[in-house]
Amino acid sequence: MKILVMVATCLVVGSISGVVTREAITTWYVTIEKPSFNPPNWIFAPVWTTLYILMGIGAGLVWQQIETKRQEVKSALVFFFIQLALNALWSLLFFGLKNPLLALIEIVVLLLMIYETFIKFNKLNKFAGYMFIPYLLWVGFATILNGAIWWLNK
Amino acid sequence: MKILVMVATCLVVGSISGVVTREAITTWYVTIEKPSFNPPNWIFAPVWTTLYILMGIGAGLVWQQIETKRQEVKSALVFFFIQLALNALWSLLFFGLKNPLLALIEIVVLLLMIYETFIKFNKLNKFAGYMFIPYLLWVGFATILNGAIWWLNK
Repeated sequence: MKILVMVATCLVVGSISGVVTREAITTWYVTIEKPSFNPPNWIFAPVWTTLYILMGIGAGLVWQQIETKRQEVKSALVFFFIQLALNALWSLLFFGLKNPLLALIEIVVLLLMIYETFIKFNKLNKFAGYMFIPYLLWVGFATILNGAIWWLNK
Repeated sequence: MKILVMVATCLVVGSISGVVTREAITTWYVTIEKPSFNPPNWIFAPVWTTLYILMGIGAGLVWQQIETKRQEVKSALVFFFIQLALNALWSLLFFGLKNPLLALIEIVVLLLMIYETFIKFNKLNKFAGYMFIPYLLWVGFATILNGAIWWLNK
């Protein structure tokens, strides 16, 4: 049940970003300069859906330990929600405001918060930590992509 | 329908902040120094519920104009979601991380984003703009309160 609530929460937050992204990706995003390693547009939606499901499973697993490890679980979930809010904010800055520089500054903070969440999740439940590895790798790649797009269009 | 969707979205985002806040307000918040104008704890929940409903009504009204004023509505809603994400983030920084300084820096950005949303909403629909006036006043007060709490406890 806790896993379902967390997966649903992540997908709802992701769908807000999705609306902004879908619109801009077919209009503004096709017109700007992109590096050679920019992936095809169709890849973003399935990748993000998968990542939101994985992070939701991780958060649900951690939440299940609330009775035995109250303080650690609460602290881990605070970082989880901070990274989730920053994740939604990134799409709004990059695709909504079409401001790659502001988005670049923000994604570095996001990456640090995801890493902190990963460390805290990993201590509570190894498997919950593993759920964050694809997410960390993707956002690491997204940071480089965002940096390259800002550089090519500044 | 659009109004209902927006009010529900705001209340769901607000309930995430609510969980973090409710826990900390009865434990950590009672132990720190607060200024004389700090309102009683019971006031926060009804005030925020009211503010989320009002901002949701405003956003729904603006969204209704999507067919006639596509660009302006989209731009106004991007700012609306940025301020909503920053609003959730503030509770996580102040009550979740218990870091009044980080929250203070963030609430100043939040206040600017609320003001920008207010201006954009007001241009599209006067009544939708009015929905933001109590919110602006409350967050203005919250900024002063946040600043005073940081100062008294630093």
